[in-house]
Amino acid sequence: MIIRRANEQDWPAIWAILRPVFRAAATYAIDPAIDEQTARSYWLLTPAACFVACDGPDILGTFYIKTNAQGGGAHVCNCGYMTLEAAQGRGVAAEMCLRSQTEAVALGYRAMQFNMVLASNTGAVRLWHRLGFETVGVIPKVFDHPKQGLVGGHVMYKWLIAT
Amino acid sequence: MIIRRANEQDWPAIWAILRPVFRAAATYAIDPAIDEQTARSYWLLTPAACFVACDGPDILGTFYIKTNAQGGGAHVCNCGYMTLEAAQGRGVAAEMCLRSQTEAVALGYRAMQFNMVLASNTGAVRLWHRLGFETVGVIPKVFDHPKQGLVGGHVMYKWLIAT
Repeated sequence: MIIRRANEQDWPAIWAILRPVFRAAATYAIDPAIDEQTARSYWLLTPAACFVACDGPDILGTFYIKTNAQGGGAHVCNCGYMTLEAAQGRGVAAEMCLRSQTEAVALGYRAMQFNMVLASNTGAVRLWHRLGFETVGVIPKVFDHPKQGLVGGHVMYKWLIAT
Repeated sequence: MIIRRANEQDWPAIWAILRPVFRAAATYAIDPAIDEQTARSYWLLTPAACFVACDGPDILGTFYIKTNAQGGGAHVCNCGYMTLEAAQGRGVAAEMCLRSQTEAVALGYRAMQFNMVLASNTGAVRLWHRLGFETVGVIPKVFDHPKQGLVGGHVMYKWLIAT
């Protein structure tokens, strides 16, 4: 598996990964009816960087890195990760998260924040903890899950560089 | 003091309140060099609603209400409040926050979240606690304060309606 910068030609494969996850409305706080152009802007065009994880010609996952807040908060980035459903269980998300941390530092960020990792998304919470992220707080009833109803969201944070 | 919806004619007075606070870069995670049109879009035009607190013809404060996240997170709003420096200490922020809660419910929101109330902004933290907000977590070193260096940010949350 190699991880490289995404380009415009990758978009159809990226959208094929994102679309079912957005439509399912169970993990990302995104309008489930988001149209393709808005999604392309959100994931590929406006972030500081967008990457794909590839196995030969196949794109198995993708992530973005963006500035989480402006001004005095601009040293903190935010990332979003998504793995092709058929590629889950192969460690793609872990590889992407590790790579995102080195890329974030290369881009000049000093910390990484996830604003809302749903408590219902237990695999993600466990993985980010294993990769060094701390749950700094859980926001109660912050997300209306299609099956589980109101669930909490972890605010997760990791300082990336030697202080 | 009356609190009413802001209109286009209020913008110069609103901008006179916002500009020095944004330029000081000590409380809001906003580009301190933000230009007037971007600020107008951010505060007055794109939120779900924007209000002003008035004493006769004088505008003493302003706040916005916006959706904090999309999809399953769309029942949670976010607000920003700003008081004219010369009007501080008169309870304007408390009145605005109380009013924002009833207006948020009227707009259909069920909860209110502040994403980053700086630990250095002790007056704000104390006031929001007094008005029923809970600190669900403090994000360490999330903001680079011009005088205090890296400071933490409170994630604050309040459920607004009977469950």
